[in-house]
Amino acid sequence: MTLKISQFIADKNPATPCLIVDLDVVKQNYLTLKSSLPQAKIYYAVKANPAAPIITTLEKLGSYFDVASLGEVKSCISLGISANRLSFGNTIKPIHAIRESYKLGIRLFAFDSAEELEKIAIYAPGSKVYCRIMVVNDGADWPLSRKFGTTAEQAIHLLIDAQEKGLKPAGISFHVGSQQKTVKAYQHAITLAANIFKTLQNRNITLDFLNLGGGFPANYSDEVPSTEDFGKTISTTMKELFPKEPPHLFIEPGRSVVGNSGVVRSEVILVSQRDETGKNPRWVYLDIGRFGGLAETEGEAIRYRFETPYDNLTTGLVPCVLAGPTCDSADVMYEKNPVMLPPELKSGDKIIILATGAYVASYCSTGFNGFAPLNEYYL
Amino acid sequence: MTLKISQFIADKNPATPCLIVDLDVVKQNYLTLKSSLPQAKIYYAVKANPAAPIITTLEKLGSYFDVASLGEVKSCISLGISANRLSFGNTIKPIHAIRESYKLGIRLFAFDSAEELEKIAIYAPGSKVYCRIMVVNDGADWPLSRKFGTTAEQAIHLLIDAQEKGLKPAGISFHVGSQQKTVKAYQHAITLAANIFKTLQNRNITLDFLNLGGGFPANYSDEVPSTEDFGKTISTTMKELFPKEPPHLFIEPGRSVVGNSGVVRSEVILVSQRDETGKNPRWVYLDIGRFGGLAETEGEAIRYRFETPYDNLTTGLVPCVLAGPTCDSADVMYEKNPVMLPPELKSGDKIIILATGAYVASYCSTGFNGFAPLNEYYL
Repeated sequence: MTLKISQFIADKNPATPCLIVDLDVVKQNYLTLKSSLPQAKIYYAVKANPAAPIITTLEKLGSYFDVASLGEVKSCISLGISANRLSFGNTIKPIHAIRESYKLGIRLFAFDSAEELEKIAIYAPGSKVYCRIMVVNDGADWPLSRKFGTTAEQAIHLLIDAQEKGLKPAGISFHVGSQQKTVKAYQHAITLAANIFKTLQNRNITLDFLNLGGGFPANYSDEVPSTEDFGKTISTTMKELFPKEPPHLFIEPGRSVVGNSGVVRSEVILVSQRDETGKNPRWVYLDIGRFGGLAETEGEAIRYRFETPYDNLTTGLVPCVLAGPTCDSADVMYEKNPVMLPPELKSGDKIIILATGAYVASYCSTGFNGFAPLNEYYL
Repeated sequence: MTLKISQFIADKNPATPCLIVDLDVVKQNYLTLKSSLPQAKIYYAVKANPAAPIITTLEKLGSYFDVASLGEVKSCISLGISANRLSFGNTIKPIHAIRESYKLGIRLFAFDSAEELEKIAIYAPGSKVYCRIMVVNDGADWPLSRKFGTTAEQAIHLLIDAQEKGLKPAGISFHVGSQQKTVKAYQHAITLAANIFKTLQNRNITLDFLNLGGGFPANYSDEVPSTEDFGKTISTTMKELFPKEPPHLFIEPGRSVVGNSGVVRSEVILVSQRDETGKNPRWVYLDIGRFGGLAETEGEAIRYRFETPYDNLTTGLVPCVLAGPTCDSADVMYEKNPVMLPPELKSGDKIIILATGAYVASYCSTGFNGFAPLNEYYL
């Protein structure tokens, strides 16, 4: 937790649950990424945290933006972002979203199937398109392999087709999986992409860019490689595989820009030791859970870290199952792998959930069980 | 789909995705439940669908209401429901929620732990309390066993304690799991509860009611026992186990009141046959998915049924993986068990997802990936 956030909490005692983000950390993360891969255009993945203060902070630093829907296109444009700084990166777009975003000036679209290409050719004629390929997601906490991307063979075929349909075949993209912790994942994927570049070159199609997607990890609880390590591996691999006239590089970081910039402040609602023997973990219920924003704890995938009022006082930690406040029994965050928390913890205590700047506020349900969406503060 | 809903769609062509509910079906479901268990007080589980038109429709029929949060307490009271028709059924309540709802006149609270009982005694003195016990959830599509409820022994101990703390020990509740398809689940649970009633009677504590919870199933795709079957089994079991002076019966139906009352209208965004061999299922992407309201497809638990424009035309069905519109690869509804859909289906087509009146609108995210919450229509 940064000094700015802890002072805000001390001064304002904001009602729980709430998300508090330090924009200085967002800035710092952006600048670190930029200096680790100076040759790359950064397209911030708006879905990670679409709040206006984050978008405008990044815009001032020169960021481009990866958008997932017409809603995100409109909200960026309403914040004064020029349409040519936006890439519509979702490969699954409703027809009206393509048509409307084309009217708003968007000229860069992702696709990974013949039907989507057809839609773009009709509703966004002459636009630049890039094809998403499927790569292996080993090493990612939140793997992505099933839903998106096509094969290298199919990508070549579709990009040739794109040109025939009057579109501009512009690039290849992939995604190594969110919260990717293995630098090698990029080496494999770049190699696959380089082969596509070469094959198309032989057909007189010169692609303009390689989009490395996102996946750079935020620091939740395991040790992760540094942004600099990712940058070095990527630069070295690019030099090897594209010895002359390398394509432009795009990256689409989301979590690595905002993940560690924010914390959730939450209240402990109940602590219950169910069995009289005390052998089983106690249950700790918070006022935020899977339906209040911590959706990424599904399958216990993302493991957050916690700060409690007893961290400097306690004599030992006890295993706790952590659950949310709703009547839904699926609203349990950590049960198979309980969280170690101080035995002093009781209802009414406030706790801090660290590194919750990404994928929290927007995942929150509109009002499941009558709980209002959490408040957000950007400092 | 009812005639009223299909006429509304034909007349208004409402933008997708949207939820359309026929309030006559809600009424009919309530009346069927009431006649199947005439001796029971019906506490509608507001969380299943908290929309004002549903609450007011049920209020006119004499319904009581089970609320899960201070938010639900306030929204019921703002709709003119008297506080003595509300039961605060969530066993995990923030202190301020107990205090505020007590101020608003709520005098009936659930609990299942010593700490919660203590909070109720302090912040809602003199209230009636009922203890939730844990029962086996075999036969339920959405089982609930882990998070809530205590043992029979502990329940006895806590209810005696409640009296000592100045509260009124009023009843026992359990929940057999949502979308429970086995009538026997109730027999087992009522037997367990009856033993608690007897033990407490010997200690001169006479509980007033037995709360059977919810769990009555809506008809999604499997055959389920009728409400009348559930009613008969419950009545017979109650007569056997409480031969004289039976306690009052409460039930907390949610899904069985609203589940089949509504449909979601959705647009097909993309159909993609990924492999050139055509051996694997094709992928069908809709403009609603797990983060737009169909959260209960998690783990492919709840299997919805579909109507397409080709249902009367098609010569055969093909297996399809069904996914939502977001960039999140977890936003896949049915993959292990694909859905059989007409091969003619293409992007731009509208499809109907049946029996989506429960747990859809409120599960919807506030704006994940920039998608606005779905519109709702109550006819």
